[in-house]
Amino acid sequence: MSDSINSASLNLPSGTELAFGTLLNVCSTLNQPGTAQELLDNLLLQARRLVNAQAGTVFLVNHSQLRFVCCQNDARPDLCVAPKPYELDRVSLSGTRISVDETSLAGYVARYKEPLRIDDAYNMPSSVCHKFDTSHDKTTGYRTKSLLVIPLIDRLGDTVGVLQLINKQIPTGETDTAFTERDQQIALAVASLAAVCIRNAKLRDTLRDSHLDTIMRLSTAAEFRDDDTGQHIRRVSFYCETIARNAGCGPETSQIILFASPMHDIGKLGIPDAILTKPGPLSREERLAMQEHTVLGAKILNGSDNEIIAMAESIALAHHEKWDGSGYPAGLRGEDIPLPGRICAVADVFDALTSKRVYKNAFPFSEAIDLIRQGIGTHFDPWLVDVFLSARGEIEIIHEALTE
Amino acid sequence: MSDSINSASLNLPSGTELAFGTLLNVCSTLNQPGTAQELLDNLLLQARRLVNAQAGTVFLVNHSQLRFVCCQNDARPDLCVAPKPYELDRVSLSGTRISVDETSLAGYVARYKEPLRIDDAYNMPSSVCHKFDTSHDKTTGYRTKSLLVIPLIDRLGDTVGVLQLINKQIPTGETDTAFTERDQQIALAVASLAAVCIRNAKLRDTLRDSHLDTIMRLSTAAEFRDDDTGQHIRRVSFYCETIARNAGCGPETSQIILFASPMHDIGKLGIPDAILTKPGPLSREERLAMQEHTVLGAKILNGSDNEIIAMAESIALAHHEKWDGSGYPAGLRGEDIPLPGRICAVADVFDALTSKRVYKNAFPFSEAIDLIRQGIGTHFDPWLVDVFLSARGEIEIIHEALTE
Repeated sequence: MSDSINSASLNLPSGTELAFGTLLNVCSTLNQPGTAQELLDNLLLQARRLVNAQAGTVFLVNHSQLRFVCCQNDARPDLCVAPKPYELDRVSLSGTRISVDETSLAGYVARYKEPLRIDDAYNMPSSVCHKFDTSHDKTTGYRTKSLLVIPLIDRLGDTVGVLQLINKQIPTGETDTAFTERDQQIALAVASLAAVCIRNAKLRDTLRDSHLDTIMRLSTAAEFRDDDTGQHIRRVSFYCETIARNAGCGPETSQIILFASPMHDIGKLGIPDAILTKPGPLSREERLAMQEHTVLGAKILNGSDNEIIAMAESIALAHHEKWDGSGYPAGLRGEDIPLPGRICAVADVFDALTSKRVYKNAFPFSEAIDLIRQGIGTHFDPWLVDVFLSARGEIEIIHEALTE
Repeated sequence: MSDSINSASLNLPSGTELAFGTLLNVCSTLNQPGTAQELLDNLLLQARRLVNAQAGTVFLVNHSQLRFVCCQNDARPDLCVAPKPYELDRVSLSGTRISVDETSLAGYVARYKEPLRIDDAYNMPSSVCHKFDTSHDKTTGYRTKSLLVIPLIDRLGDTVGVLQLINKQIPTGETDTAFTERDQQIALAVASLAAVCIRNAKLRDTLRDSHLDTIMRLSTAAEFRDDDTGQHIRRVSFYCETIARNAGCGPETSQIILFASPMHDIGKLGIPDAILTKPGPLSREERLAMQEHTVLGAKILNGSDNEIIAMAESIALAHHEKWDGSGYPAGLRGEDIPLPGRICAVADVFDALTSKRVYKNAFPFSEAIDLIRQGIGTHFDPWLVDVFLSARGEIEIIHEALTE
C-alpha cells in the first residue's frame, strides 16, 4: 500500500487506481469496431501497460502448433513484423512454428494449460520440465529476462493460444524487475478476454464454413442433371470472388459473392429433363422455357433478409443479361444490370468456354481468355473484363486447381 | 483516498483494491462455460457488487422494445421471476414491454445512447426530458431511489440493451447513498462486456438463421419436381425436431435434426423425371432406381466435418429403413438404424399420409395418427411412436400452421 499512500499525499492516483482505470478501459474498448487481430493487438498493449512489460506476443494454436499473431516490442520495434491479414485458422500465420510441448515456454504452457512466471529465462532451476528456447534471442540479439506466459483457454477448456509478456520494466517507486503475483492475475484476466475474442472469431468462422459447405453441396447437387462433377459451381464461385475482390468490392462483399454465386443456376431445378438434357438444339419454345431458370431461381431465393440469399437472388436473375441489352430475362443494359450479375456473367461464360460439353470440346485457357475479351461492350462490362484480365494469374490458379 | 489509507493501516485491501479484484474476476469468468443468459446474470451480479446496488435489471432490445432478460433484487427476491430459456431474439422475453422512448428511463437511455445517473427517481428536476415510469414500483411496492442506467452499445453503435443498477447501498465508511462517477465508469465497463456477449450471441443466431434459411430454400427447390409448394420439407423438418426433443435429445441435437432433416430427400435430384414424376405404378427396375435416392443423397452429403451435413447424410441414407428390417437401402433392423433416420421415418410417412398426392387424397389428421400407430414394430420404432403420440398436440400445431 506504500505507493497508494505516497500518491495520495501527492494527490495522484495510486498504482492500483491506475491499474483499475486501465482495466476498466480494456473492458470498455472490447466493444469497439475492429477485426479480431486489432482486438488482440489492443489487449496485448493494455496487458503490457498494466504489468509494465517491454515486449509481448500473442500466439494462436493452429493445427497443433503455435504461430504468432501479435508481436510488440518497445525496445526493438523492428522485430515486430505485422502478420498477414488475420483470419485465424484460414491464413498461414506469421513467424516460426512452435510445437505444443516442453521444448519452449509457450509450448509448455499451451500443453499443460498452466501459467508460468519466470524471473530469469537464462537462470531457471534445472529441476523444471519446461525449457526456454533461446533461438529467437540468438537470431534477433534481443535479450529476454523475465516472463509471464499465460495460456488462453476457451470455454470448452481447450487451449486456443498463449499470451507472453516479456521483460518487466521498473515502474516508479519499485526496484524489483520480476513480474509479481498481481501481474499474473492481471495477465490472466486479459488472457480470458483474449480467449473470448478468439473463441468468438473461430465460432463465426466455423458457422460460415458450415454455411458455405451446405451451399456448395446443395448447389452442386442441383447441377446433377447436366454436370455430375459439380466442379463448374465451385470454379464459377471462386472466379466471381476473385473478380469482385479485384474490382475493389472489399473482403466482406467479396465473401458474400463467393457464398451467393454457387446458387446462380438453382432455377434449373424447375426445368424438365426433356429440355435441360436434350442433346440436339432447342426449339424456340424450349429455349424460352430454359431461359425461365433465371426467373425461377430468383423466385426460389426471393425475399430473404439474409444477405447471402438476397445477393444470390440478384445473381440468379441477372447472370444472363448482357451489357448491350440483348440478354435475358429483362434485357437490362449496362450498369442497370446489378454488379454481381455482371461479375457472374464473365465467370460463368469463361467457365463454360473452358469446360467440355456433350456438343463441344473445352477451349484452352488462353483461347477462352481471348473469347472473353471479344465480348467487351457487347456481352460484358468492359471494366470488369479489364479487372478479369488483370487477375489472370489468380484465375489460372483456380482453373488448374479445380479442373480434373 | 481516505478509505485506502484507513484500510492500509488495518492491513485490509482498499476499496479500489476490492473493486480491482472484482473486475479482474469479472474478466476471468467471462470465459467460463454457460449460456448467454448465465453470462449476463453473472455480469449483472458482479456489476451490482462493484457499485453496491441492491437491485438490477438487464433489458434487451427486441423488435424495437425493451424486455428484461435478467432481474436481481436482494431485498425482494420474489420479484425476480426467471425468464424463459433464453435465446435472445427467438423466444418471447419475460415481463412488460418498454418502448424505446422518453416515457421510461431505460427507454430514454436506449434511444439516446447516453447513461443516466439519478440520485432520486421521485425527485428529478422538472427540466429533464426523461421520465421515471412509476408503474413497476406501484405494482410491486418496491421503492426505487438511486439509479444508474447504462446503454449496451454494440460495435456497430446500435443499442442492444440496457443495464439498470438500482438503489445504491451504504458501503462501510461512506454516508452518501447516491451512485458516484466512479460507479458509472464501472457500470460502463461491465456494460461493454455485456454488449459483447449479446452481440456475439446475436451474431451466432443470425449465422444459424441464415444457414437454416439456405437449407430450407435449397431443399425445397430440390423437391420442385414432385412437390412445388415445398411445405412437405418444412413440415417434416419441424416434426423431426418435435419428436427428437420429446425423445430427450436435448436442444442442441434437436436443432441439428431440425437443420439436417430438410435434406432427407436431396438424392432425388439424381433421379430422372421419367421415374420421379411417372404417373402410373413403377416397374421393378424403376422402383430400384427410385430407391437409389437414399444412397445418392448420402453421397452428396458424404464426408463433411460439419455436424449438420453429417447428420443429414445419416438421415438421407436411413429414412426408408424399417424397424423389422424390410426397408432399404441396407435392410437395417431395430436400433441398428441410426436414431435420426428412425425419427425421420415416422415424420416423413406421417406427412405423406396427411398430404394430397396425384394418386391419393390426404388422410385426415386423426386417421393418419392411427395409421402410424399400426406401423409400430413393423415399420417404426415402437418407442418413437409413443413419443410421437405423446407429442400429438405439438404435431397438430405444426400440421395446421404449414398446411394450405
